Amino acid sequence: MRARNLALVLGEVARDGPLTRAALAELTGLTKTTVSKLVGDLLDAGMVRESGAVRDGERGRPGVAVSLSGDRVAALGLEINVDYLSVCVMDLTRTVRLRRAQAVDNRDSLPTDVVRDLRILATEAVDEAATEGLAVCGAVLAVPGAVDPGGLVHNAPNLGWRDVRPAVMLDLPMPVTVDNEANLAALGELWFGSGGPDFLYVSGEIGIGAGLVFGGRVFRGTQGFAGELGHVVVDPDGPACRCGGRGCLERYAGQDALLHATTPDEAPPPDGVPAGRHRPGDAPPDRHRPDRAQPGLPGDAPPDRHRPGRALPGLPGDAAPGRHRPGGGLEELVARLAAGDGRAVAACEQAGHALGIALTSAVNLVDPGTIVLGGIFAPLFPWLSGPTTAALARIRHVVPRLAVSTAGPDAATLGAAAQVIGQIIADPSAHLPRDPAAPAASR
Amino acid sequence: MRARNLALVLGEVARDGPLTRAALAELTGLTKTTVSKLVGDLLDAGMVRESGAVRDGERGRPGVAVSLSGDRVAALGLEINVDYLSVCVMDLTRTVRLRRAQAVDNRDSLPTDVVRDLRILATEAVDEAATEGLAVCGAVLAVPGAVDPGGLVHNAPNLGWRDVRPAVMLDLPMPVTVDNEANLAALGELWFGSGGPDFLYVSGEIGIGAGLVFGGRVFRGTQGFAGELGHVVVDPDGPACRCGGRGCLERYAGQDALLHATTPDEAPPPDGVPAGRHRPGDAPPDRHRPDRAQPGLPGDAPPDRHRPGRALPGLPGDAAPGRHRPGGGLEELVARLAAGDGRAVAACEQAGHALGIALTSAVNLVDPGTIVLGGIFAPLFPWLSGPTTAALARIRHVVPRLAVSTAGPDAATLGAAAQVIGQIIADPSAHLPRDPAAPAASR
Repeated sequence: MRARNLALVLGEVARDGPLTRAALAELTGLTKTTVSKLVGDLLDAGMVRESGAVRDGERGRPGVAVSLSGDRVAALGLEINVDYLSVCVMDLTRTVRLRRAQAVDNRDSLPTDVVRDLRILATEAVDEAATEGLAVCGAVLAVPGAVDPGGLVHNAPNLGWRDVRPAVMLDLPMPVTVDNEANLAALGELWFGSGGPDFLYVSGEIGIGAGLVFGGRVFRGTQGFAGELGHVVVDPDGPACRCGGRGCLERYAGQDALLHATTPDEAPPPDGVPAGRHRPGDAPPDRHRPDRAQPGLPGDAPPDRHRPGRALPGLPGDAAPGRHRPGGGLEELVARLAAGDGRAVAACEQAGHALGIALTSAVNLVDPGTIVLGGIFAPLFPWLSGPTTAALARIRHVVPRLAVSTAGPDAATLGAAAQVIGQIIADPSAHLPRDPAAPAASR
Repeated sequence: MRARNLALVLGEVARDGPLTRAALAELTGLTKTTVSKLVGDLLDAGMVRESGAVRDGERGRPGVAVSLSGDRVAALGLEINVDYLSVCVMDLTRTVRLRRAQAVDNRDSLPTDVVRDLRILATEAVDEAATEGLAVCGAVLAVPGAVDPGGLVHNAPNLGWRDVRPAVMLDLPMPVTVDNEANLAALGELWFGSGGPDFLYVSGEIGIGAGLVFGGRVFRGTQGFAGELGHVVVDPDGPACRCGGRGCLERYAGQDALLHATTPDEAPPPDGVPAGRHRPGDAPPDRHRPDRAQPGLPGDAPPDRHRPGRALPGLPGDAAPGRHRPGGGLEELVARLAAGDGRAVAACEQAGHALGIALTSAVNLVDPGTIVLGGIFAPLFPWLSGPTTAALARIRHVVPRLAVSTAGPDAATLGAAAQVIGQIIADPSAHLPRDPAAPAASR
């Protein structure tokens, strides 16, 4: 009962604060005595503070207003992606207090190595937050792959992970849950970007994911695996994908494919499969393979997913190693696009065309409202949106609106941390530090 | 208040009946006097009947049990599809009391003509139901196209309809709502077939639609247009589709494409576009059309959608005209498949392969539980399921289970009528005939 009432009071303060105790009693239907006791508990826990402001329309003696406090309780947003790690600390008012990112090549990595790097980054962030008096109460970790509700990463093809439990391996002194990167980036867009209640968020990274937001909630499908836009089929005779399929969107519009297409004379991308599609002069592909296609095209080297003892580049202490660059980095691509470089523009047109084809299928299947392009697609939006819209214009209904993400490149970590804040506000008693006076990091 | 209590009592009877008035009072929290009054009203309306059965465990004098009555209140399920019309009458116990179907070619039809045919069929059914004492309280109409929540058919490409309000044109003496055919067929599968709470129902007809059922409810997207599986892109360089797109699933696995593929020497299907994909020797298609593709391939005659005064074949009084048959009908195809006809088997393999590619995209995007194949795909299941599963087996997760629909070929009309029954049980007061003694058809 106390837990429910704490949530009731904190929820009202979060939604409509600052509010006096009298206003809180009216809004919640609790007695003023009960409200005062609950507000006292929330003050002790550092979740609210007294602002001294007085509300109009109150009768009797002037009340002291109560609002959310950003001084003590905080959440950790974490992200493991293919070419970077990212961390943020957010206080209870959903203000970002600290951001850290580290460029690192996590392809075909050992989960233990990657998680070790992330733990160092996370621990540094928690310690730094503690110096500001912030106690981190929980964390959510974003991973670019299929994650079930129990936190098991079934498959993250671009990391080379299968059946990994990174939350257990992280072993942080707080509850950690795991979710799909695109789902969390969509929540980041919902809370910190331009997203309305219904949109499809496209997360462009090495892989491509999507978060389907309907009525302000993420649609997850039966097992939690919905939104795998990167493996929507663009061309069934197209190049092999690391997922085991063929002609997936990632092979045309993922970061590797895109950067590689700007420098076609270089070696093929790291998994050994050329990003281009088969040319009309090629031998006709066999369309009617009744059984599973062979895992790679001729010439593929099978990816070496778990090289034991492999040293990761970009460990802490290294100079920032920069993104993996088959054809120059993303910043270089944007500069070339801005300068009107023909090959760069053509690469974006090809990627945008493929994105439009995959989105045509997505729009036909799930009828989202707006489509928000995020991740690397945000800086590339001016060059991608035209060809993407042109491919989408073939849809029978009104063409959905394309918008650029405004949540920024760390949308997933923002969404992750904000999800923890939402959980704390929904159930503050479960997230109070055991000893409210001591920051969590010192436990 | 009375409306809410009527719904409460009827809901309990529908869920757990037969029940005594005493048991109903216990379950609903209403007084026995109130329950008796409400049961009296429901008896008068013909929605419940007294069964005479006595429940164990009741104290005091033996109670007379009350159960749903199938004697008076009924619903009408209606379907307009490309090559048939279908009607069913269902009583309050969800027992089908009457089924009618009429083969008719509705391609490029005038909505007024089609609706006139359907009104005749519907009125006959309502009259026939009246002779059994059934009063039809409402109807739902299934249409193969994009329907918004207000009943406007935005687009039904295979009918050639745009912005049509068939419920208004039907002008039946009862409320009529309109919904997408595949959504209603999915509900038919949910209530009368094998569907669990989570599945993707594939409706194979001239067009191909899908109903996405999650937690026993249809997922409709933002505007109600979700589930357009037939326009998921199988090959972006494939043949033009009537939707304005290219290489849509319908062009490979819709009934016309499938039947046509069994007789490749005949004339192309009625919209003039060959069903096969471009061959490797063809001139390479231009993949980078930055603007909308021209509406048809060279040689296309633009479809003549609204020929005024066009006489429909298959009006009532005609002998059943049979399905449109570019390469023999569906029954003939099944017979040829059963006899091991090589061309028929190859046509199914090609269609199943394309279906598997589209379903791969669907599974990646929405993560359904089971995939249920219905409509013409149900009788073709033994020949389709192998190639479809093979194409699906390329997905990175567990391959979803393929199942054959068990709701039968009129799943959409069953789902439509059952939806009305559900509405009546949820709000009986709104669906009581104005004069419960007079059947609706005689008004």
